Amino acid sequence: MYPRAMNVHGSPYRSIWWDATSEAVCIVDQRRLPHEFVVIQLVTLDQAATAIREMWVRGAPLIGVAAAFGLHLGLRENAADEHLTQAVATLQDTRPTAVNPFWALARMEKILREVDEDSRATTALEQALLMADQDVQMNEIIGRHGVDILREISERNGSSEPLNILTHCNAGWLATVDWGTATSPIYQAHRQGIPVHVWVDETRPRNQGASLTAWELGEEGVPHTVIVDNAAGHLMQRGKVDLVITGTDRTTRSGDVCNKIGTYQKALAASDNGVPFYVAAPSSSIDWEIASGSDIPIEERSGDEVRWVRGRDADGSVRRVRVVPENTNALNPAFDVTPARLVTGIITERGLSEASEEGLAGLFG
Amino acid sequence: MYPRAMNVHGSPYRSIWWDATSEAVCIVDQRRLPHEFVVIQLVTLDQAATAIREMWVRGAPLIGVAAAFGLHLGLRENAADEHLTQAVATLQDTRPTAVNPFWALARMEKILREVDEDSRATTALEQALLMADQDVQMNEIIGRHGVDILREISERNGSSEPLNILTHCNAGWLATVDWGTATSPIYQAHRQGIPVHVWVDETRPRNQGASLTAWELGEEGVPHTVIVDNAAGHLMQRGKVDLVITGTDRTTRSGDVCNKIGTYQKALAASDNGVPFYVAAPSSSIDWEIASGSDIPIEERSGDEVRWVRGRDADGSVRRVRVVPENTNALNPAFDVTPARLVTGIITERGLSEASEEGLAGLFG
Repeated sequence: MYPRAMNVHGSPYRSIWWDATSEAVCIVDQRRLPHEFVVIQLVTLDQAATAIREMWVRGAPLIGVAAAFGLHLGLRENAADEHLTQAVATLQDTRPTAVNPFWALARMEKILREVDEDSRATTALEQALLMADQDVQMNEIIGRHGVDILREISERNGSSEPLNILTHCNAGWLATVDWGTATSPIYQAHRQGIPVHVWVDETRPRNQGASLTAWELGEEGVPHTVIVDNAAGHLMQRGKVDLVITGTDRTTRSGDVCNKIGTYQKALAASDNGVPFYVAAPSSSIDWEIASGSDIPIEERSGDEVRWVRGRDADGSVRRVRVVPENTNALNPAFDVTPARLVTGIITERGLSEASEEGLAGLFG
Repeated sequence: MYPRAMNVHGSPYRSIWWDATSEAVCIVDQRRLPHEFVVIQLVTLDQAATAIREMWVRGAPLIGVAAAFGLHLGLRENAADEHLTQAVATLQDTRPTAVNPFWALARMEKILREVDEDSRATTALEQALLMADQDVQMNEIIGRHGVDILREISERNGSSEPLNILTHCNAGWLATVDWGTATSPIYQAHRQGIPVHVWVDETRPRNQGASLTAWELGEEGVPHTVIVDNAAGHLMQRGKVDLVITGTDRTTRSGDVCNKIGTYQKALAASDNGVPFYVAAPSSSIDWEIASGSDIPIEERSGDEVRWVRGRDADGSVRRVRVVPENTNALNPAFDVTPARLVTGIITERGLSEASEEGLAGLFG
């Protein structure tokens, strides 16, 4: 097994793991962070599908792996052909935008069709465990490629100031199995003694930056400051951002990057101010079937995510408050597409690629 | 007196007015909207300064008028020369970015220096009342110029769909004495039967869009939908925004527009998608002393505005919740600068101007 990476209260954790004793898939309930750290056990296909749909787990790489574990749970209930088909469909239907679950399920299904019914559940578990380990390994390698970029910019700056990195949403270890994608270069730089400081976009409406990225970075001791999503452009204008790194939910073969809503606005601001804009993308996030980002289905989530904000009140209770007048309409598209022209480079497990068909095809053949 | 405009529960209101019976300045406490509609009476200079500093009233035009009323309150306490100087300084020190209070106080001070001590408080009140009426009049005229633009785009679209207008923060009647700046064309279009729909940027961290603009538009029956600040670019990419109109806290003589943090990112997205980006600016918001937006002082407010969100919980109580981990740093610059090159036009009380030194000088001489 690949060595563990990220700490919670000083102890190593992954975002998802298999508990052999209880024969359950364990996850960190990400809805409750940063206020509560709660582990949930998933034991049925339906629970796994709910966990993905309702964002108990989220982040493209993690929901890919969660779907793989979910397929195991489904097959141990019933491993017949038609149930395999149905279980794959159930898990595919949870969230439309990230390509990783589709990729993971397609890979699993292909293998499982070749296997006897009796062995399918076991094979699915083995595959899910393998996929989890591969995710960790890929992110670790992405971090190694990314840290070279960070070191180079840091040295070019020649400043005693820390390198100021802006990130959007959470492409941290919580969005993967471990290390994270966008955060992997940051964690590795920090551990290597390259001074870094992270501007954490709050990332409305679900506040994954304020609640997850800030929490992760805090647990690892990486200096960071939370800003509202509106502030990034201003900081870039004032020279306070050395580079941007984000994750991606789906990158087309031509390098258009679909990611959390708001990423496009950050990329525009980066471009307008000559700030490099990098995307950390394991190959499982690349959709080779699609050329243009406008063909990616954009999930529209409930307007309640805009209307209500969750947090901890002064008395210590976790509650939701409504921030709009009663009966106010809200629209909540969850992702947007950053055109390849605004992307400086895509950091993959095979190294840095230009955000173009030639660049990606050159690396992945 | 200029006819009143905007409705609250069907009754006409201004955001600030003089109550002759109690000899007090009345304001709507904007911190408590949209959940509670509360009128506060200000009777001392210190109260007026606090009301501006703590954002009981906000919006560049309104805090200009509030400063003028505040000066009356100060002078009725003591009208001596040195106290006039001190009262002006106290009110100038409340908030640094909007130019309107500086403009209003300079105009008042010049007049008041020429007046006997005995008459100063009365003259100050007369001037404040005049300034309030002039603000309403200017905004009404800005609306008339703006509605021509809206009608033209609506007719050019030739669609039965409503005209989709995006606005950021609150440049509504609550930000002025009445009508608003950015909203004045919208209210007038709506009253003239031009079908409009407003995308309301939430506008973190203080949520003036979600809490004030949405509330205003709702009270006036203007169709609108709240979105998070991250969503505007995506909607523009998908052709869902016909134009953007914002207000301004200070516009330089060369047309650089300082406005609520996040405006710059919306302007970039508008430019990238060929969406016209208009700024509604009474001449009191134009700073003729400054050419470049980078010379405008940007107010930095408490990080608690980022860390804590105020709203109404499911039980009906208004409370604040913390959205970040304990002890998380937050930075909170309150404004940014949109360079003139991204601004399609500035709608002033003298008509539409190019966002340039030539354009503005041409209109204002």
